[in-house]
Amino acid sequence: MVLNGPNLNLLGTREPALYGSATLADIEVQVRERAAALGASVTFAQSNHEGELVDLVQGIGGNAEGAIVNLGAYTHTSLALRDAFLAAPIPFVEVHLSNLFKREAERHHSVTADLAVGMVTGFGAAGYLLALEALVGVLRARR
Amino acid sequence: MVLNGPNLNLLGTREPALYGSATLADIEVQVRERAAALGASVTFAQSNHEGELVDLVQGIGGNAEGAIVNLGAYTHTSLALRDAFLAAPIPFVEVHLSNLFKREAERHHSVTADLAVGMVTGFGAAGYLLALEALVGVLRARR
Amino acid sequence: MVLNGPNLNLLGTREPALYGSATLADIEVQVRERAAALGASVTFAQSNHEGELVDLVQGIGGNAEGAIVNLGAYTHTSLALRDAFLAAPIPFVEVHLSNLFKREAERHHSVTADLAVGMVTGFGAAGYLLALEALVGVLRARR
Amino acid sequence: MVLNGPNLNLLGTREPALYGSATLADIEVQVRERAAALGASVTFAQSNHEGELVDLVQGIGGNAEGAIVNLGAYTHTSLALRDAFLAAPIPFVEVHLSNLFKREAERHHSVTADLAVGMVTGFGAAGYLLALEALVGVLRARR
Amino acid sequence: MVLNGPNLNLLGTREPALYGSATLADIEVQVRERAAALGASVTFAQSNHEGELVDLVQGIGGNAEGAIVNLGAYTHTSLALRDAFLAAPIPFVEVHLSNLFKREAERHHSVTADLAVGMVTGFGAAGYLLALEALVGVLRARR
Amino acid sequence: MVLNGPNLNLLGTREPALYGSATLADIEVQVRERAAALGASVTFAQSNHEGELVDLVQGIGGNAEGAIVNLGAYTHTSLALRDAFLAAPIPFVEVHLSNLFKREAERHHSVTADLAVGMVTGFGAAGYLLALEALVGVLRARR
Amino acid sequence: MVLNGPNLNLLGTREPALYGSATLADIEVQVRERAAALGASVTFAQSNHEGELVDLVQGIGGNAEGAIVNLGAYTHTSLALRDAFLAAPIPFVEVHLSNLFKREAERHHSVTADLAVGMVTGFGAAGYLLALEALVGVLRARR
Amino acid sequence: MVLNGPNLNLLGTREPALYGSATLADIEVQVRERAAALGASVTFAQSNHEGELVDLVQGIGGNAEGAIVNLGAYTHTSLALRDAFLAAPIPFVEVHLSNLFKREAERHHSVTADLAVGMVTGFGAAGYLLALEALVGVLRARR
Amino acid sequence: MVLNGPNLNLLGTREPALYGSATLADIEVQVRERAAALGASVTFAQSNHEGELVDLVQGIGGNAEGAIVNLGAYTHTSLALRDAFLAAPIPFVEVHLSNLFKREAERHHSVTADLAVGMVTGFGAAGYLLALEALVGVLRARR
Amino acid sequence: MVLNGPNLNLLGTREPALYGSATLADIEVQVRERAAALGASVTFAQSNHEGELVDLVQGIGGNAEGAIVNLGAYTHTSLALRDAFLAAPIPFVEVHLSNLFKREAERHHSVTADLAVGMVTGFGAAGYLLALEALVGVLRARR
Amino acid sequence: MVLNGPNLNLLGTREPALYGSATLADIEVQVRERAAALGASVTFAQSNHEGELVDLVQGIGGNAEGAIVNLGAYTHTSLALRDAFLAAPIPFVEVHLSNLFKREAERHHSVTADLAVGMVTGFGAAGYLLALEALVGVLRARR
Amino acid sequence: MVLNGPNLNLLGTREPALYGSATLADIEVQVRERAAALGASVTFAQSNHEGELVDLVQGIGGNAEGAIVNLGAYTHTSLALRDAFLAAPIPFVEVHLSNLFKREAERHHSVTADLAVGMVTGFGAAGYLLALEALVGVLRARR
Repeated sequence: MVLNGPNLNLLGTREPALYGSATLADIEVQVRERAAALGASVTFAQSNHEGELVDLVQGIGGNAEGAIVNLGAYTHTSLALRDAFLAAPIPFVEVHLSNLFKREAERHHSVTADLAVGMVTGFGAAGYLLALEALVGVLRARR
Repeated sequence: MVLNGPNLNLLGTREPALYGSATLADIEVQVRERAAALGASVTFAQSNHEGELVDLVQGIGGNAEGAIVNLGAYTHTSLALRDAFLAAPIPFVEVHLSNLFKREAERHHSVTADLAVGMVTGFGAAGYLLALEALVGVLRARR
Repeated sequence: MVLNGPNLNLLGTREPALYGSATLADIEVQVRERAAALGASVTFAQSNHEGELVDLVQGIGGNAEGAIVNLGAYTHTSLALRDAFLAAPIPFVEVHLSNLFKREAERHHSVTADLAVGMVTGFGAAGYLLALEALVGVLRARR
Repeated sequence: MVLNGPNLNLLGTREPALYGSATLADIEVQVRERAAALGASVTFAQSNHEGELVDLVQGIGGNAEGAIVNLGAYTHTSLALRDAFLAAPIPFVEVHLSNLFKREAERHHSVTADLAVGMVTGFGAAGYLLALEALVGVLRARR
Repeated sequence: MVLNGPNLNLLGTREPALYGSATLADIEVQVRERAAALGASVTFAQSNHEGELVDLVQGIGGNAEGAIVNLGAYTHTSLALRDAFLAAPIPFVEVHLSNLFKREAERHHSVTADLAVGMVTGFGAAGYLLALEALVGVLRARR
Repeated sequence: MVLNGPNLNLLGTREPALYGSATLADIEVQVRERAAALGASVTFAQSNHEGELVDLVQGIGGNAEGAIVNLGAYTHTSLALRDAFLAAPIPFVEVHLSNLFKREAERHHSVTADLAVGMVTGFGAAGYLLALEALVGVLRARR
Repeated sequence: MVLNGPNLNLLGTREPALYGSATLADIEVQVRERAAALGASVTFAQSNHEGELVDLVQGIGGNAEGAIVNLGAYTHTSLALRDAFLAAPIPFVEVHLSNLFKREAERHHSVTADLAVGMVTGFGAAGYLLALEALVGVLRARR
Repeated sequence: MVLNGPNLNLLGTREPALYGSATLADIEVQVRERAAALGASVTFAQSNHEGELVDLVQGIGGNAEGAIVNLGAYTHTSLALRDAFLAAPIPFVEVHLSNLFKREAERHHSVTADLAVGMVTGFGAAGYLLALEALVGVLRARR
Repeated sequence: MVLNGPNLNLLGTREPALYGSATLADIEVQVRERAAALGASVTFAQSNHEGELVDLVQGIGGNAEGAIVNLGAYTHTSLALRDAFLAAPIPFVEVHLSNLFKREAERHHSVTADLAVGMVTGFGAAGYLLALEALVGVLRARR
Repeated sequence: MVLNGPNLNLLGTREPALYGSATLADIEVQVRERAAALGASVTFAQSNHEGELVDLVQGIGGNAEGAIVNLGAYTHTSLALRDAFLAAPIPFVEVHLSNLFKREAERHHSVTADLAVGMVTGFGAAGYLLALEALVGVLRARR
Repeated sequence: MVLNGPNLNLLGTREPALYGSATLADIEVQVRERAAALGASVTFAQSNHEGELVDLVQGIGGNAEGAIVNLGAYTHTSLALRDAFLAAPIPFVEVHLSNLFKREAERHHSVTADLAVGMVTGFGAAGYLLALEALVGVLRARR
Repeated sequence: MVLNGPNLNLLGTREPALYGSATLADIEVQVRERAAALGASVTFAQSNHEGELVDLVQGIGGNAEGAIVNLGAYTHTSLALRDAFLAAPIPFVEVHLSNLFKREAERHHSVTADLAVGMVTGFGAAGYLLALEALVGVLRARR
């Protein structure tokens, strides 16, 4: 499961200097290819609605063994998503396209990062592939 | 009206050591029984969506004389729900399953508590029954 | 485009001492009339849902040359809406019915105001007309 | 054991708009009646002296199975009482007549609330009865 | 009465990218024209001296029915001017040429804004005209 | 009623460079003389115990028309005494021997000063006489 | 020397509920009478200009043996006046008409209070008389 | 003089994992023995009452050449005890059973530590013996 | 242009231990001599009035190629002077007689220092000569 | 270049539950293998000395095209290393073994992260491999 | 092992009023004598270099059963030393010559104190002997 | 003695827009020439190692009558260097190439500036010559 938050549907057109020119669909293709190479399969989801994201996280345990998560702006504000992840039975890796530490101070803090296995931040679309590799490694080590 | 916020639909399965093993349906049964005993009737609602909860609070005056409210994580972050309660014409009691004061610091603050008649926190599912009793008392005193 | 956030659908009934007795429909009529006088046309939208508002802002560039925005309580909390405006290709003016500086401290801060052309605050329904006039001026100066 | 802190001996005469017109003696009568109905018995104590309250809490384990505690202003300042409760072998419920969250900011914090089972705040004298009911429930569940 | 604070006499030459190329005299002409169109008349004053501005505000009640006020840097620091406005018997509108929220943090706070009817910020010289329109509307509604 | 808090019984011997060489008994004599000259009479009390001071304030209404209060270190820490004065039906004047503003920062704040008519600080023993004069003036103006 | 800061020339008309109905001229008469009774004479000065007040304080040593000072709003903001008092060779007493501790938090701090002998706050016009009495006492004790 | 504050009478039974199993009486025996070996004698006192502790500190000069002080929770909150030690004419050593720096942040601060010769913290009952040795050394060096 | 702020006219008499015994006239003589030696000429100005200093800075571009500035206490508080320097077309060097970093914390911050070429602080009257040398060097490098 | 800071020489023995059982030599072997597979070569360095690390960073441009950096505790405190990286002409990736966001608050901040391309945190030794892959991708994209 | 940090090699000459006239060599002699009396032996080390101290702490487990540690200024700033102690397998006692609580606020905090058994502060050279005694007691109790 | 801290060995190549194109060797030549002209001689030292700089400061008294000090990034973080200067028997002048007040907030604070005679900041390499002149003046005045 690869879960994407608000405004990530605009990728490729939104501030390309900051977020790159790949669209979310481009990233999905790359992630699927890498997943296939690693013997895994992935589901993609995106929503601008905090509540829908909460619904998705609540259902995540039945649909996936692990998750790659980019909650966009909700990363910094949503206690409701934090609570949903607290109740989720699977490990997840947090990924951000831009380097959070180069952004405004309120984006240096993530309400979910301490629940994640780890975080990959600053490598653009390539960060999803690194996160996938990391997650597959974690899942294999746990078996 | 008993209004429940995000992740409360997971009750019974989500962190049972913290929130108890009763489901929201179990609580609904208990609250209905106690309400009947007190000569009152109740409506139950739950949503993970902040906007839907705002809609519900906006409609609350036409549907109920008072409310029992557990906004989950939105308790600590939602000014939009605070504004909705500011406009609501009925008294409400705030209830929390866990003792907020045993949780992280950001959960010690509630954006709606000063608008409520009062708060009951820390008694698990039983808190809903205490809140109901308190609310019925307040409503009878106002008549 | 005139975009309105949570609880603004209650205008006229919600705390009239603070927000005035005009309903959002009344304001829409006045804005349309003034727009016609200025040779412009307007679309009105309102939602209590942060995600729907993000959707609306994402689509704003295709539908309008500029926007008048009153995000209600999300003005103070929604980084997701800030991100949506960061990606929006058109200028907007922020308007508030009440004078934000007479309200509680957390309402003195706006997460979108530094992205707006400017702000008009404190003049009730008339503020929408002033914002319209300001926006039309800005758009004409840019041509 | 129902333990009452400074100025609660003034109940009924002290700021009745805030604290109600019931005296502490009136509350004692109501609590005794409800306790009898629940098959329990209660002891009442009140003191304006922090040291006497520490003494009372130190002796609480020998005299009671549980406690209802309203420490008045010491709720917000007394680490000595916090230490005494840390050493006390019985569960207690914290009760406040007024809604702490409607008061000044320094009254939103309680130095003992995280040690309590939970808190009931804002329901006036009725809060003692709710606290009693809650405490009896907790004690029965622990047996 | 249109009251202007320190450095506004430099308008047109001082940081034109930020404040525009209109001089204070240009603005005065525009405001007088718009006032005439609205059936009102205006007096203009400017000073770099806090004390002179206090004197002007003290005399404002005898000279005008309302005021448009741009106190420049004193907006953020002068409690003496705040006190003078507290004693002034007429409504005023606060106006700023640049968008305060795009400036440094210490310029986001105004010591007089909560005393004003409202604020118009970010529209350059046009802001004075919007403020005039707003003020005339307020004065007519009060009659 | 002249009420004195902790360590004021040491006056004359405790840090005379800071507090002066007059003992509390010396001050009592001076205050009685001045009171007699003003046609008033006074009672003196001192205690190192916060609880006893609360008891004294609770009983103050029956014993006096007004009070002069020097709570010593409890001035800065005792919410219990603040609550007692909130319930007291008579006006009081706060007095301090040393100039609080020359002391450490935590002594610049008084938990009772906003409840007092006013404060006299920094004039040593003479401050009691000034406070007496002020209090008598206030009581006569209220008649 | 009795030195008065900004807006004190409005006394009697400015917020009489807060500052009383006596004008500064009324206070001057009362202070002169009391001074005569104490065998002293006084000069009165008032200015709304921080710079003029600095000039007055600089000249204070040649004109007076001591001063009574009410700097109005400059009490809370003027480091320049603090510097002037640091260089002044005579003792002064700070006086405020309203009780500073009942005002907004930024008025609880005085930049000159630690340089003064002491402060008298909250007794309206009578505070000037108390300050005079205190100052005369201090000057006589120093001879 | 060995002075002990609130809840130290519970030693041995109160949180033995934190404070050890020695009672205060056990410690008294050990301290007396070590004092005898060092040619000194000691008095022991304990109280849960802040006021009684103030009384004890006020009388300390007449009864002892130096003191060992463990004020328990009052260490962190009691300005009244700080004032009493400011007036006390003898040196004292502050001792704490547990390591204050392993406790909550509010226990890292002591209102009396800067008045003490020094502090010994974290060595359980043995800390009293180390404090005694340190104090005897200081007293001998001063002779 | 050498610009001097409030209380600098007292130099030589005001706190000589801190500011030295040279008067401002003495410094003017030394600066003129050194300027002559460097082939430059200087104008001196001093005012206690913030507004006059703003006027002087506004006119500085027409009168000088560069400035040496000691704004005294306004260094730490005057946004109006900061704005005036923002609009000034010439480089300036900030100088302070005492070492700001040895003073109270509020004097460690300068509202103009980031606009200056640099700062010289702590060398008494000699600092003006060093500032002159630095300024001449900067002006020559820019030609 | 792979640069390792203080205490990383202890890897494998230091808190293995937190940092894993791989030694730094084990990691070096894995990184060399992966580098070879990617057609790159690596140098490893480790030091406990801040100054030596500054020396290494100063020399980094001559020795490598990019760097993988784990500065251990200096990540959070060393402005000197930040300055060295500011002057370094090559891109670097920051890596941490443990998830910084699960650690104490002072470890959530990195003084170099905003200078890095990005950060990989929380994946143990595998993080070095992910960082290598990310760095190689960045270097190839820049060619 | 007795480990000493920066500037402790200057003992006896550096600020003797604060740190005493004993040199580090003098202290070493005293500690060796007391250790011999207690049947223990000690190694002494001192360094001004943070990195060398990290090296020493890393090697501490092989050389000693326990340590007495005075890290000088690094006590307050070095996370690298904190990390080294986190990995060290032996107990240590922290000692400071001066009373940290009489020093500036930034010296009240120690980054290692919560890892130590306890702290002895304020007794000059004698503090090393007390720390030795405490450490020997702890080591014997653990056997 | 001219003492230079971390990264100053990179001068001329490191961020020349900020620090200028002169190397440290160039500066040394200029300082030696100016020193010769003033009848003084200088020693230059630079190190990236905090410990080495502490060693150098400890030995400074034997080698020089005064010092010019640019500690680079350690200016803002090193309490160990502050302690070394506290023990140094000679005056020093602090110099910075760039204007500290134009840099990030954490570079506005210097841990040694209050120990220095004064500071020269913002004049690039010329600042060393100004500092030399200032230091020679101070040393001559002290003779």
